Amino acid sequence: MTLPVQASHTLKETAFIKGLLRELADYVRARYGERHTVDISAKRDANDLVTEVDVAVQQQAQQRIAEAFPHDRFIGEEEGCDVIPSEVGLRAWVMDPIDGTQNFVRSMYPAFGISLAFVEGGIIRASGVMMPIDNDLFLAEHGGGTLRNGQLIRVSDVPSVELARLEVDFGGRHVRARTLEVSSELMRQVGQIRCHCAAVIGLCSVACADTDAYIHVGLKPWDYAASVLIVEEAGGVVSRMDGSQIRVFGDRHDVIATNGRFHAELLGTLTL
Amino acid sequence: MTLPVQASHTLKETAFIKGLLRELADYVRARYGERHTVDISAKRDANDLVTEVDVAVQQQAQQRIAEAFPHDRFIGEEEGCDVIPSEVGLRAWVMDPIDGTQNFVRSMYPAFGISLAFVEGGIIRASGVMMPIDNDLFLAEHGGGTLRNGQLIRVSDVPSVELARLEVDFGGRHVRARTLEVSSELMRQVGQIRCHCAAVIGLCSVACADTDAYIHVGLKPWDYAASVLIVEEAGGVVSRMDGSQIRVFGDRHDVIATNGRFHAELLGTLTL
Repeated sequence: MTLPVQASHTLKETAFIKGLLRELADYVRARYGERHTVDISAKRDANDLVTEVDVAVQQQAQQRIAEAFPHDRFIGEEEGCDVIPSEVGLRAWVMDPIDGTQNFVRSMYPAFGISLAFVEGGIIRASGVMMPIDNDLFLAEHGGGTLRNGQLIRVSDVPSVELARLEVDFGGRHVRARTLEVSSELMRQVGQIRCHCAAVIGLCSVACADTDAYIHVGLKPWDYAASVLIVEEAGGVVSRMDGSQIRVFGDRHDVIATNGRFHAELLGTLTL
Repeated sequence: MTLPVQASHTLKETAFIKGLLRELADYVRARYGERHTVDISAKRDANDLVTEVDVAVQQQAQQRIAEAFPHDRFIGEEEGCDVIPSEVGLRAWVMDPIDGTQNFVRSMYPAFGISLAFVEGGIIRASGVMMPIDNDLFLAEHGGGTLRNGQLIRVSDVPSVELARLEVDFGGRHVRARTLEVSSELMRQVGQIRCHCAAVIGLCSVACADTDAYIHVGLKPWDYAASVLIVEEAGGVVSRMDGSQIRVFGDRHDVIATNGRFHAELLGTLTL
């Protein structure tokens, strides 16, 4: 893939994402200081949390999207909006209000982000990820490159698994055995391993060349829709673990991203 | 262990560590902005790096320690100072100038720190870890509690492996197979997994209750000497993987730290 030498972001949806993520980040930053006292509930299990901040961010986004694009579909992680549409022809907005909620609640580093993608006809047209505490904004448009805080970025040029830094996303306990089974040979071979347990951090790190590869065996569309475009438009490659293409509203949950220099080599190490 | 309700830091060595770490942090912060251009060399392999900043920090510390405590021994990771003394009766300073050099060179978050411990008669008497970019200082004194930026801190009260957040430090490729072998059952059982690949981050995260446990199969004294006291004085427990006590200048390299609530349960999951 030839990368643009300068970004070309022309869609009104891209501009909308940028404005909305900045607005939402202001709210999240204000609540972060009081994160030890926000209301927290467990969803699937004690390690799968939702806070009142997750819910408030999604509600605010849903309302703003409904005002600006009243005929579009909204899909989000929280509040019963988590129904994956079968109709790929539609215009849809796919959001994770806070990806990395556990790191919002407690962590040495604020490794979480707001993720929002605009999908049309099954294609991710525009997307943004905002790390609110660092005010760190990744913005991508299909065919128009990825900007990080206004600067065009691209993936690393690390050439092999042996030299690569890999972000393994171990996820919750329900996907743990599968993660270890699939990636144990890869984890033996790879140069370095990191795990922040937030898809937006892992994938945006690949896009900006802080990491070379990312793996997760069980993500939902709101976890990765925005970041997939961010990686691809920075020159990286994203696929399923068997090398097949990502279809956002398909029934697969596994995601592999690399800088594109050793994608096939990495896939060859996996135990499927 | 009963924790002090207020810290009591009275040793002149503790005050010295505090002053020196602040001074060194100023230097590292200044160099961090130009980290993409600093001189980097590979040590053991391409994933084991040392930068000119590591070397400069150690040299500056070694000089200041020699001026203030001319009869004390200096042990550090770089520049041939990495000889572990057999004499446990001595007064020794143990330093890692930058623990987490890979994250200094590139990372979404500045997950590295300067680590300095004062050891006397085999006992870690005083220590400090400074995360220079966040100006985040952990300071501990034997029997006197752990302060983080002047505030007394303590470990979490998470009661079990199933609910715990574990920092697995996968280290370099030479310890990778052993790490996966030892901890694979633990990784299946534990609530959450993180990996920042810097011992100071993993251990200080346990001390300040952002994480509940930490494991590494192959550390050197300069990686952990300071942080061990920081965890213990915050109410946590640190041991070898078989439950035996840490001797800083012993011949063991494995380190397990927990908040003390499920230490035996965690040890029981390991494959030794």
